[in-house]
Amino acid sequence: MKKILLPLLLAITGVATAQENVLQYVKPITGTMRMGHTYPGATVPFGAVQLSPETDTIPYEMNGKYNPDVYKYCAGYQYEDKTIVGFSHTHFSGTGHADLGDFLIMPTTGELQLNPGTAEHPETGYRSVFSHSTEVAEPGYYKVKLEDHNILAEMTASSRVGFHQYTFSGNGTAHIILDMMSNIYNYENKNVWTYIRVENDTLVTGFRQTNGWARTRIEYFAMVFSKPIQHYGHRNYAKDVYRGFWRKFDQYHDFPEMAGKQIRAYFDFQTTPGEKIQIKMALSPVSTEGALKNLQAEIPGWNFDQVKRDAQQLWTKELNKIHIESGSREEKENFYTAMYHAFINPTTYMDVDGSYRGLDMNIHNTNGYTNYTTFSLWDTYRALHPFFNVIQPGRNADMIRSMMAHYEQSAQHMLPIWSHYANENWCMIGYHSVSVIADAVMKGNAPFDANKALEACVTTARHRNYDGLGYYIDKGYIPEDKEGSSVSKVLEYAYDDWCIAQMAKKLGRNDIYEEFIKRSLNYKNVYDSKTGFMRPRLSDGSFKPNFDPLQTHDQGFIEGNAWNYSLYVPQYPADMIAMMGGKKQFAQHLDSLFTMELPDKYFAETEDITRDGIIGNYVHGNEPSHHVVYLYNHTGQPWKTQDRVRMILRKMYHPGPDGLGGNDDCGQMSAWYIFSSLGFYPMCPGADQYELGSPAVDKATLQLENGKTFVVDVKNQSDKNVYVQQVLLNGKPWKQLTISHSDIMNGGTITFVMGAKPKDYTK
Amino acid sequence: MKKILLPLLLAITGVATAQENVLQYVKPITGTMRMGHTYPGATVPFGAVQLSPETDTIPYEMNGKYNPDVYKYCAGYQYEDKTIVGFSHTHFSGTGHADLGDFLIMPTTGELQLNPGTAEHPETGYRSVFSHSTEVAEPGYYKVKLEDHNILAEMTASSRVGFHQYTFSGNGTAHIILDMMSNIYNYENKNVWTYIRVENDTLVTGFRQTNGWARTRIEYFAMVFSKPIQHYGHRNYAKDVYRGFWRKFDQYHDFPEMAGKQIRAYFDFQTTPGEKIQIKMALSPVSTEGALKNLQAEIPGWNFDQVKRDAQQLWTKELNKIHIESGSREEKENFYTAMYHAFINPTTYMDVDGSYRGLDMNIHNTNGYTNYTTFSLWDTYRALHPFFNVIQPGRNADMIRSMMAHYEQSAQHMLPIWSHYANENWCMIGYHSVSVIADAVMKGNAPFDANKALEACVTTARHRNYDGLGYYIDKGYIPEDKEGSSVSKVLEYAYDDWCIAQMAKKLGRNDIYEEFIKRSLNYKNVYDSKTGFMRPRLSDGSFKPNFDPLQTHDQGFIEGNAWNYSLYVPQYPADMIAMMGGKKQFAQHLDSLFTMELPDKYFAETEDITRDGIIGNYVHGNEPSHHVVYLYNHTGQPWKTQDRVRMILRKMYHPGPDGLGGNDDCGQMSAWYIFSSLGFYPMCPGADQYELGSPAVDKATLQLENGKTFVVDVKNQSDKNVYVQQVLLNGKPWKQLTISHSDIMNGGTITFVMGAKPKDYTK
Repeated sequence: MKKILLPLLLAITGVATAQENVLQYVKPITGTMRMGHTYPGATVPFGAVQLSPETDTIPYEMNGKYNPDVYKYCAGYQYEDKTIVGFSHTHFSGTGHADLGDFLIMPTTGELQLNPGTAEHPETGYRSVFSHSTEVAEPGYYKVKLEDHNILAEMTASSRVGFHQYTFSGNGTAHIILDMMSNIYNYENKNVWTYIRVENDTLVTGFRQTNGWARTRIEYFAMVFSKPIQHYGHRNYAKDVYRGFWRKFDQYHDFPEMAGKQIRAYFDFQTTPGEKIQIKMALSPVSTEGALKNLQAEIPGWNFDQVKRDAQQLWTKELNKIHIESGSREEKENFYTAMYHAFINPTTYMDVDGSYRGLDMNIHNTNGYTNYTTFSLWDTYRALHPFFNVIQPGRNADMIRSMMAHYEQSAQHMLPIWSHYANENWCMIGYHSVSVIADAVMKGNAPFDANKALEACVTTARHRNYDGLGYYIDKGYIPEDKEGSSVSKVLEYAYDDWCIAQMAKKLGRNDIYEEFIKRSLNYKNVYDSKTGFMRPRLSDGSFKPNFDPLQTHDQGFIEGNAWNYSLYVPQYPADMIAMMGGKKQFAQHLDSLFTMELPDKYFAETEDITRDGIIGNYVHGNEPSHHVVYLYNHTGQPWKTQDRVRMILRKMYHPGPDGLGGNDDCGQMSAWYIFSSLGFYPMCPGADQYELGSPAVDKATLQLENGKTFVVDVKNQSDKNVYVQQVLLNGKPWKQLTISHSDIMNGGTITFVMGAKPKDYTK
Repeated sequence: MKKILLPLLLAITGVATAQENVLQYVKPITGTMRMGHTYPGATVPFGAVQLSPETDTIPYEMNGKYNPDVYKYCAGYQYEDKTIVGFSHTHFSGTGHADLGDFLIMPTTGELQLNPGTAEHPETGYRSVFSHSTEVAEPGYYKVKLEDHNILAEMTASSRVGFHQYTFSGNGTAHIILDMMSNIYNYENKNVWTYIRVENDTLVTGFRQTNGWARTRIEYFAMVFSKPIQHYGHRNYAKDVYRGFWRKFDQYHDFPEMAGKQIRAYFDFQTTPGEKIQIKMALSPVSTEGALKNLQAEIPGWNFDQVKRDAQQLWTKELNKIHIESGSREEKENFYTAMYHAFINPTTYMDVDGSYRGLDMNIHNTNGYTNYTTFSLWDTYRALHPFFNVIQPGRNADMIRSMMAHYEQSAQHMLPIWSHYANENWCMIGYHSVSVIADAVMKGNAPFDANKALEACVTTARHRNYDGLGYYIDKGYIPEDKEGSSVSKVLEYAYDDWCIAQMAKKLGRNDIYEEFIKRSLNYKNVYDSKTGFMRPRLSDGSFKPNFDPLQTHDQGFIEGNAWNYSLYVPQYPADMIAMMGGKKQFAQHLDSLFTMELPDKYFAETEDITRDGIIGNYVHGNEPSHHVVYLYNHTGQPWKTQDRVRMILRKMYHPGPDGLGGNDDCGQMSAWYIFSSLGFYPMCPGADQYELGSPAVDKATLQLENGKTFVVDVKNQSDKNVYVQQVLLNGKPWKQLTISHSDIMNGGTITFVMGAKPKDYTK
């Protein structure tokens, strides 16, 4: 009886709150339609394996030209598609460019088909029609019926192992296809080499080397079947066939070593109705031996349900780090789905023994910390890493250790820009590792060598060959005629430089402080007081003519026009506002941004977002505007921050396939949601202040790693009562528009009293 | 004074004999013309690096067809060529197919040319005219003047490091080209991936992955320059260009990370007249980190002359294991050049720390022994490995350990057939690892687990899917209509099976003995008593019609016609001779073989040899006949063995570029020379007997690893006195035509008394 009593007892205590089944609120399907670029499959928090269905087989290029249709397949799956090609083990979550899709597995029955076939005619290949009615997507678990083959497909995962369970309905030969050709973003010649080795009648190992977004990428696997393989074979679709002496064997049937650029293999089994074939696929960045170690360490047995329970327990633990109360189920679904998406990236990139492949292609060992990859830093420095500094400080420190290892292994001697799988892909602009490191250092979450980290930041920021930086250092701006997107770059460098300066000051390096605080003022050099916008300059110092502040392309910006990007001086909001005409005029600019109507021709060139991703000319689907709504706090009109934060939360996010207004960008969009929904936001990472907004939850309890608890207690909140009337910090009236990091980390309670009318509660 | 006296004293003692400068007799240039397929460059005994000039840039295929001209470039260099393309670091010695040629370096001056240009118009590229008058090829040292650039090129090596020294004659910019595209056997798409990383201004690392004879081969390097690089860059000649975000850099100039399938890089330096630029290039099968370790361990400094002295000292030590006396300088040159070529392969394949890449692509460690690769076993089981059992028993045991590691890592669970660089290329027939292992076990040189080795032999020999073996096991022969070269295969399997049986008997495994001694009799199943030749049979048991015993192709044989191959029953010479009509008739067959005139049409299809490689219809340039001349000993006419051994020694070998009548085949041709010149030969490896022939030296002293000395003392030997009149073993008359392995290894003296007339000294 006691065994039953205990959970019942817990259920009515505060501790029990943390035991609530939060998984019910997570909708992994959110963002799988159009531009969200998320995936519905199985993964564990920050896991190395993302086992998820692919619905795409279209090529990246057609007739030598980029095929724009591939863009929606960044995560391999589009909700509107009718067929599933198979299940591969690596996926980005929410990115705006793609790679991965390793080791696609598909179970089939009937005659062996090694070609995937087309979406229009799935019967021409191994792919299968599916229906959302049979589809279940939960954290750590995915299920779907493959109708063409009458196979129930289920999958779960540990960090490094994907676990497949296929239930067959008939007697006969079942084929498990292992398609080494299948790639997300299927460039011609993307496969550099693939290799499959049948070690014995249940174990298969191999690797794939690709030249995609990551230029020189290699991933290894070890795959075990729950029953012995009867026969196996492969076909090589490449033109360049091995010229060695293979006459001694039929290398295409039951020959245990298969290699080439374009290979599809199959493994045959006899099944009876209801029989399950299980497959465990372990990955490693190091070797097949490493993959096998990972497999044995993480999933030694064959209990699928237990592995699923373990995966979901991991999710429950991480998601319970914030417990929210809300009368709105949609709010809970939005919030926990955002938490789920925020806890996918960066991903673990090392074997269980600490080995991983470095940027120098050598094998390194972390000797203790967890090495991570997939750093979409231009996105994630804004809110995701600051969020980790609050709720995942240990992991964030390990992410910085991983970034430092990247720096030490980089031939360019630079911190990561956008890196994944031992490669730097140089995507987007700035050097925002600097911001992530400064944010951790300034917030006291630096259990690494901060002086060495500062040195890495400085070395990175002095790299004259990098992306116009030489011009920036010499002239204080980048001539648009020399380097495109020059204004965006100058503004972001200036912000990053401010981060370096803050860190240098804290670490007593005044020489560095002086150098970089000066650079942090360079935003002024691209401000055109005549138009009132940031504007590109040319080599002779003049502003570029024919300036259109609504246009993004060829106007000195990237992923944002002058209307949005001109507001990017998060390090000096007061100075920026003064420069732009003072608080009143600036607030009017913000008002116009949210209310103006953007002509269609400009929308057409706005990247990565759907029509829903824009409010007026405010583009929430792209990151440069993520801090903008909080600038109202600096104009004396904080109620507009409050009102518009709630509007964005409501309009840009909802549970369901089309629930994201733009790329989730490895969790940045989701982190924005979490912070804003909790009522505070890190407008300037590297500063230890958070802007207060308008919380959308009724209550939130943050379980901090230091053992303390920070509570956001919201009184009288509703869709109408979005205006803050009063703030209390630990029961005492709080008249500021910001709180500090230590206010949170020391534990305590912030109370928001809400009402239906704007009010300046600081007075 | 004493310091001087000691060497003088040694010079007049027996010990001093071993100090003779034997290097003077070694002519690495031997065999570099036509079919010898040797190379003239610098290597140390069994070294991992073979640093040698390339004179070839012709493609392996033209218009989709094999270009037969490439064949002569198996070792990269042809004596008759007028230009040198550059110097690469890996070469086979004497093979009949090719691969390698890694990391070609070429120094140039003047305008940068990244294309090699053509042999006809060397001025169109970076290659240079050279002359043999400036060329010096010694063991461990190579020198040549690059006339187009007025650069003196010198090179030496340690085991894993190639050391270049280029002396420039003028002021100006010197370019060091690193051509990653250059390959021996330059298939289209042979390069799978190449990668270059400039670590700092003197250190460059990288790797190359190829799909050549070895299907999945990867080799790493670390290269250091003696002075800082001024500028560097590369060009990518591949169609598939990286689609990542490189806009941030000019990736072609001074950008430290270069990768792609077809890359040529350059490194620029300013030189003054007489200035030397030195380059050390270390290889590793494991990683660039491993290459750097090898570099630091083997050549930490920059003293070129010292490294050359060290390399030559290593050669002196190995070559002095046999000291010969001869009145003929040509004999000495032949003998020591053969010793040199015999001590090149197999090559070391591991880092200084014992790490190496296994067949499973994982990194293994030998934990003590030296791992070797380049096992051309169809050739080398005959005389090279038996020679090692006499003079390099420690290395031979390590070679067998390496073969066992291959077996353990093989997906096919087979011992090596023809393996190199962690790949099995399946070249030629049989499973002659078995012979090498049995020879070592039977001769008592088995400091490894002999029972495990026997198990590996048996598992290999029972592999039904391998090359007709299933038919052989079931029928006792291979139907030619099912598998080509069926007679050659049956004969060699039968011999190998006899080896297994001998080993099993010695190890007390009677079950295995019974199985394989039965199989060893299968040679009888392909003997056609009507024609008196071995002859292919068909599935129905009948002999294949239209049989031509002079023809090689499509007649059931490979690299040998029925005239030669029918004699391949080395395990049962007496039974074979009886089967073939008795001693007299058999001796007449042998006589005809050596004296008949082979019509031109048959010569045209005889592979791998020049016209000089044939005596009558006896083909010494191919291995299947290597034991044939010793069969006279079994016909009661040993003087014909003696006479014809000397004829072969004289006709098939001489110092100079055209000094080899066929491929040296990784030292097999040379090992035949050494044994035959010493007066004994292992006609049937796996038996511990050596056939006595006719020694061509006046005296030979073999310094054995067990500390003992075996002396071959030859009285009255000359070009005319080729017939043995009397043999004494340790001073006592010896009436047998064989001696045993222990007769040698126990130390002592065999004395041959020679004369001008045939004599049966056993009577």
